[in-house]
Amino acid sequence: MNPLLSRRNFLKATSLAAASLPFAPTFSFAAESKRKIGYALCGLGSLSTHQLAPALQNTKYCRLAGIITGTPAKARSWQAKYKLPERSIYSYDTMAKLAENPDIDVVYVVTPNGLHAEHTIAAAKAGKHVLCEKPMEVSPEKCQQMIDACKAAGKQLAIGYRLHFEPNNLECIRLAREKVFGDLRFIEAGFGFAIGDPKQWRLNKALSGGGPMMDVGIYALQALRYLSGEEPISVSALATTVDTVKFRDIEETLIWQMKFPSGLLGSGNTTYRFGGINRFNVNAERGWFGMTPAYSYHGLRGSRSDGETIQMPDIDQFAAEMDDFAQCILENRPTRVPGEEGLRDMKIIAAIYESARTGKAVKLA
Amino acid sequence: MNPLLSRRNFLKATSLAAASLPFAPTFSFAAESKRKIGYALCGLGSLSTHQLAPALQNTKYCRLAGIITGTPAKARSWQAKYKLPERSIYSYDTMAKLAENPDIDVVYVVTPNGLHAEHTIAAAKAGKHVLCEKPMEVSPEKCQQMIDACKAAGKQLAIGYRLHFEPNNLECIRLAREKVFGDLRFIEAGFGFAIGDPKQWRLNKALSGGGPMMDVGIYALQALRYLSGEEPISVSALATTVDTVKFRDIEETLIWQMKFPSGLLGSGNTTYRFGGINRFNVNAERGWFGMTPAYSYHGLRGSRSDGETIQMPDIDQFAAEMDDFAQCILENRPTRVPGEEGLRDMKIIAAIYESARTGKAVKLA
Repeated sequence: MNPLLSRRNFLKATSLAAASLPFAPTFSFAAESKRKIGYALCGLGSLSTHQLAPALQNTKYCRLAGIITGTPAKARSWQAKYKLPERSIYSYDTMAKLAENPDIDVVYVVTPNGLHAEHTIAAAKAGKHVLCEKPMEVSPEKCQQMIDACKAAGKQLAIGYRLHFEPNNLECIRLAREKVFGDLRFIEAGFGFAIGDPKQWRLNKALSGGGPMMDVGIYALQALRYLSGEEPISVSALATTVDTVKFRDIEETLIWQMKFPSGLLGSGNTTYRFGGINRFNVNAERGWFGMTPAYSYHGLRGSRSDGETIQMPDIDQFAAEMDDFAQCILENRPTRVPGEEGLRDMKIIAAIYESARTGKAVKLA
Repeated sequence: MNPLLSRRNFLKATSLAAASLPFAPTFSFAAESKRKIGYALCGLGSLSTHQLAPALQNTKYCRLAGIITGTPAKARSWQAKYKLPERSIYSYDTMAKLAENPDIDVVYVVTPNGLHAEHTIAAAKAGKHVLCEKPMEVSPEKCQQMIDACKAAGKQLAIGYRLHFEPNNLECIRLAREKVFGDLRFIEAGFGFAIGDPKQWRLNKALSGGGPMMDVGIYALQALRYLSGEEPISVSALATTVDTVKFRDIEETLIWQMKFPSGLLGSGNTTYRFGGINRFNVNAERGWFGMTPAYSYHGLRGSRSDGETIQMPDIDQFAAEMDDFAQCILENRPTRVPGEEGLRDMKIIAAIYESARTGKAVKLA
């Protein structure tokens, strides 16, 4: 094949993403590699079923190469649906055998939060790179163990912060970094919903590590961090629970506020009690911009004080996230969403919970 | 005059307000009174010049009956413009002589915050009712002195909370009280602007008592209180100042959060640094509603999660406020915005400042 043509095809195929992503790689030899990165999905719940498996079909550099599940019936139905060979089916107990399977490069950990360290460490020990869903785990200590395990194995660890690859959020980051409306002064961000089934693992603290803050509040926290481009120096928080039966040992609704080194202030909120908040609003010296919805899989859009609309291409965010990690592996370059990023969020969330408990602002290093 | 016709005219004239105000009085004999309540404006700054004097022309039960000013040139120009008799012109030093002027029923105190107690007490001692601009004063102690002085004089004291008479805000209060979207769970409210002239009294703590929290943040605090219908039980706050020359001893930007007895959480913000925030958003169990702009003199409007728009008649808020107080006096009934309401805000603001200073949540009685 004419290498020029090949290169031209690559540029054409990726122009949409490249035009939208300020951090997108320049021309890459990954495109010329014939090999696709093999992903094994670890945990076959709703996200794997309805988002990740379909998204893998939309990737350029990835393919579904295996599954890891504790439910034999799921293993059979996935195997049939995706025509997976018998050797690519694992249970949590057989993850060590991943080491023998060269088709699998990455384990995508999609199990409940409190099992992320166990499954990440097992994957790393089997010599696999790991992409782990957010939140990274339930405590900073667990996050550190994951980082250490991947480092010891010489494998990359990325956290599933899909919005780092989402064109509308990236456009807002550009507006912030380029100071299109001047220095940022205040950001309000919130994400919540009315949770259903009272028996789900998200309401079980041992598995979830907490309530909506761990699950969806982390998107608002991420927005505060990636929009500001700063790390908070102090946080304070208030939490309430009205339905103490359903929310036995986790918060139902939580609001927090944070101070950044530049003097920027941030305010966040999250809930499992009601819908209707899926937004961020950024106020700068000479104007404002914001998005609502800001964190959904599709349909994101925003507005600006100068009357312009923010509406960048609506991409498959999970495909973009998995393709980026595949390229990082193929090109041996670091991910923009490493374990250290997940650890930072977990430390801040721990401080938020501490403040909600003690009634005192908590300083951050 | 045919009393029936008179009554009909009254109802017609007030139907707009009556339809919009859940707390509006039923038919009132005030309408049949020939006498208009005489207002003296105490402090002839921008608000008196551009809002209150014109608004008095739009009232049904009030008339401009005097002025109190420390600037002789202003006295002359106002006297000429409004054809005021010589006996209705006062300086701050001659307020005791108000007692001899039966034309003046109410003194509307529009001086800098830190002079409100002095002028309110002087008016009360001269036997006048007092309508005092917000914030009531600069400390709870001063507010209490004002309440005591008016009580001792047997006169009413009202605070200039004009939005208690504003149809769009009242519609939102109705949505909250009637639980149109269910129980309230979270309210976010903010009001700020980029302040100009660095020499104005609002930047002088001795006169202002504080920064934007005292001036415009109080609107967001009021919204949190009148929308919730509850009193906060704890508050926490963060404040920052970037420009320490202009904002020498007051906050530049401040955010706070509060917990209410029902479990409702509230988040507020205010600034003298940037514009673009003039809003509240209310999240309830089954939907949301909000307004932006929420606190302006005109053009208020809002939206609801069911797709309906909130856009009630655009009234002269100051005229409505002054007419209501006039009716309270004519009918000898209490105002809905008494000094106690101003004192409550001042106690909460003091707690907000304490929390911003100490980094600890402050409990409220």
